[in-house]
Amino acid sequence: MLMKTSSQSLTEQLSGRFAQRIRDRLLAPGARLPSVRQCAQQQGVSPSTVVAAYDQLLAQGLVEARKNRGFFVRELTPREPAPTASQAGRARVQPAWATATGFDAMRPPTPIDATALIRGMFHKLSPKPQPGMGVFPPEWLESTFMPAAVRKVTGTRVLQEFSLQYGEPMGDLALRRGLAKKLAGLNVPAAPEQIITTVGATHALDIVSRTLLRPGDPVMVEEPGWAVEFARLTSLGMRLLPVPRGPDGPDLDVMAKYCEAHRPKLYISVSVLHNPTGYCLSPGAAHRVLQLANRYDFHVVEDDTYSHIGPEHATRLCALDGLQRTLHVSGFAKILAPNWRVGFVAAHPSLVERLLDTKLLSTLTTPALLERALALCIEQGQLRRHAERIRTRLDAARSRSVKLAMQAGCRFAAEPAGLFGWVDTGVDTDALAQRMLDEGYLLAPGALFHAERKPGTLMRINFATTQDAAFWKKYSELVRRM
Amino acid sequence: MLMKTSSQSLTEQLSGRFAQRIRDRLLAPGARLPSVRQCAQQQGVSPSTVVAAYDQLLAQGLVEARKNRGFFVRELTPREPAPTASQAGRARVQPAWATATGFDAMRPPTPIDATALIRGMFHKLSPKPQPGMGVFPPEWLESTFMPAAVRKVTGTRVLQEFSLQYGEPMGDLALRRGLAKKLAGLNVPAAPEQIITTVGATHALDIVSRTLLRPGDPVMVEEPGWAVEFARLTSLGMRLLPVPRGPDGPDLDVMAKYCEAHRPKLYISVSVLHNPTGYCLSPGAAHRVLQLANRYDFHVVEDDTYSHIGPEHATRLCALDGLQRTLHVSGFAKILAPNWRVGFVAAHPSLVERLLDTKLLSTLTTPALLERALALCIEQGQLRRHAERIRTRLDAARSRSVKLAMQAGCRFAAEPAGLFGWVDTGVDTDALAQRMLDEGYLLAPGALFHAERKPGTLMRINFATTQDAAFWKKYSELVRRM
Repeated sequence: MLMKTSSQSLTEQLSGRFAQRIRDRLLAPGARLPSVRQCAQQQGVSPSTVVAAYDQLLAQGLVEARKNRGFFVRELTPREPAPTASQAGRARVQPAWATATGFDAMRPPTPIDATALIRGMFHKLSPKPQPGMGVFPPEWLESTFMPAAVRKVTGTRVLQEFSLQYGEPMGDLALRRGLAKKLAGLNVPAAPEQIITTVGATHALDIVSRTLLRPGDPVMVEEPGWAVEFARLTSLGMRLLPVPRGPDGPDLDVMAKYCEAHRPKLYISVSVLHNPTGYCLSPGAAHRVLQLANRYDFHVVEDDTYSHIGPEHATRLCALDGLQRTLHVSGFAKILAPNWRVGFVAAHPSLVERLLDTKLLSTLTTPALLERALALCIEQGQLRRHAERIRTRLDAARSRSVKLAMQAGCRFAAEPAGLFGWVDTGVDTDALAQRMLDEGYLLAPGALFHAERKPGTLMRINFATTQDAAFWKKYSELVRRM
Repeated sequence: MLMKTSSQSLTEQLSGRFAQRIRDRLLAPGARLPSVRQCAQQQGVSPSTVVAAYDQLLAQGLVEARKNRGFFVRELTPREPAPTASQAGRARVQPAWATATGFDAMRPPTPIDATALIRGMFHKLSPKPQPGMGVFPPEWLESTFMPAAVRKVTGTRVLQEFSLQYGEPMGDLALRRGLAKKLAGLNVPAAPEQIITTVGATHALDIVSRTLLRPGDPVMVEEPGWAVEFARLTSLGMRLLPVPRGPDGPDLDVMAKYCEAHRPKLYISVSVLHNPTGYCLSPGAAHRVLQLANRYDFHVVEDDTYSHIGPEHATRLCALDGLQRTLHVSGFAKILAPNWRVGFVAAHPSLVERLLDTKLLSTLTTPALLERALALCIEQGQLRRHAERIRTRLDAARSRSVKLAMQAGCRFAAEPAGLFGWVDTGVDTDALAQRMLDEGYLLAPGALFHAERKPGTLMRINFATTQDAAFWKKYSELVRRM
């Protein structure tokens, strides 16, 4: 709610709020501002205040007026034109994510884009718990063992040793040994020599795509799926082939058709606690995916980001296939320390050299100090016990959140599991997300999780941050008014 | 020299040495092994020992025999075929670096490729000082202030604060403030809001190319120039336009012709202490480069990796242009802590959002802990004083190295300056590099620094690691025998 203060008029406050949101791309280029009447009603101010605020935005060059249609967010910087299909030499799927990365200014507006969402996860928008977040709240991750591990590797002698040379290109050996053991526990056979550390799982996925794919190559992704993955592949010039993801696994008919028509080189999959649905792959579907991979000769990268909070004995493609044509990617942002940016990829020995080259070309090496500290946390079993505690806490949070969500009229589109709920709100979640932003809440509307962005009524919630009745009260109020 | 031991025969030692070198790609796929007679002579063993060793390599599938031509290193893993010119939709420069990244198996062999060189910098090949290295020896970088700075940021409270959230997408604010001040000292005007931290300068350059270029785009690079840069651009699908680099700057006629013919989007330049020549850009050349950039509408990224050891008042494109169409990239691997992987890019405000998106898509954020420790080292002037001490030490090392090199018959192709010498040996440095490897020395042959790899007599030496008479003695011996 806007309130008169001595230092800023209501007009200034309102235009300032819109300006900030445009700069943060929580209102993307091309998006339409609410009508003057709507805005006045939503904000509890007079229409003349809104007109004056919109005038200020016009004067600042942030919005433009279109005759009889209202005010639209302007494209702030000139962007590169997209290549034509003929330049790429073949048909090109241009997903809406292209807009997120500035490759196609002619697309419909995306009210909250992928990078805006992840930026939202990083800044605190407000002190309120954020339902759109992708990680646990920091206080959940607090531990005494993590600082202790860091102290062990920051003595002068060991610090100099870690810091003053580039370090092992594959990554810290103690960590790779710890990871090999951890993977063995998941039935994924990987020697330390098959493991390369990276700057988080994001970097690992980036390295895999840059190694196995060339610009223009078709790649199968899951839909719904993780926004940043779509945006990155698109920015690298890859062609997205979205495969619908169901409770048991990917739609195998669609996959088979893509294989026949496009001969994709890679399938990117979150088998365990799929984001955003929480689905886990069934053993039968896993077997059939691998049959397709063998028949059509494509690689599979399994993004196991949620392994730390996954169910025991979950089915993994990498376990079935033994890292023959599968690659395993994971990281520690979800369980230990998001900012340490430690992740890794495990792959068949024949791929290791090429993956390592891509790592060297993108970042040379990675900081060994944090890798060794992480190795200590793994070795001593502290990380495992920490993960158990977090799983227990999450189970309780999930029951509370599910109950509150259902009381607020949400329907679960997928059986609640893991960190995320995939809920049907019954209203347009793009519009809802804009309204909730006014209240200091960042939502993750369902359209974000689609390669071809289409507005819908779904959204992803984080069970750890939706246990508060205050959020659901505000949510219900706004949904009722839509 | 091979020596009989109880545990390993001479044959096993010899085949083991070749096998290791092939796996490390210090002998690249397609490279020819020395003839049996040559090898026997070089290693001081009998021809039958060599024949037996080559047979072992054959049996291991590491080499293949070609009738009447000898033994050649096999391609270890199947690589992707290069796209044809028609697929890319325009003429395509296919530099030899493509081989380094596995894109073109039909090219002539590269005895030491770019990534092999940088791996060589990371592993200790032998305890001897390595003339091919790109950094200072670790003992030069030792300091007391670095561990002290780390201790200040690893207290439990501050560590949790840094670690348990993703952190600021732009990078640690204290560091960006410190960098802004440092840049002001170089007359490069950049507010903290124009600076994005990265995983070393390599990542910064990667982010810049991925933001400003699309696959297939032409990009001007300096020749000779830094191998890893060529390899990365090629692996991203860019077309390299190599501009000869002279003592004053790039060849402006060649540059103008490229501009007319190809309309390149970007020019990548090391203005100060160019790698490998040590050249510094003249003010006149800088002015004319910027005129071309304005006329033909391209960006310039200035890689200022060697700024810490550069001459005072060196000319920088970013200073002249005020970051209008220039971007400034640098890092701290050359002066403080190679493994910390802290680098940054400074750019015009209109580019910052796009660069930040690319950072988010490639690694999300970067480790704030090390960034803040670095900020402390900068703030308190310790890094500046440390750099002064290293410059003084380097000046002394350079005089000694130059003297020894000239006594060994080297001619300096460029006036000695900075960390690297660019010397003419009079013999094929690709062949010389292989022979010196047998003696435990990693060289950086001149062919490595060319976009179109061609053997030659030049090589790059590191002044900090070529002060020892022992190296030059072995060097002279081998050169005499070639």
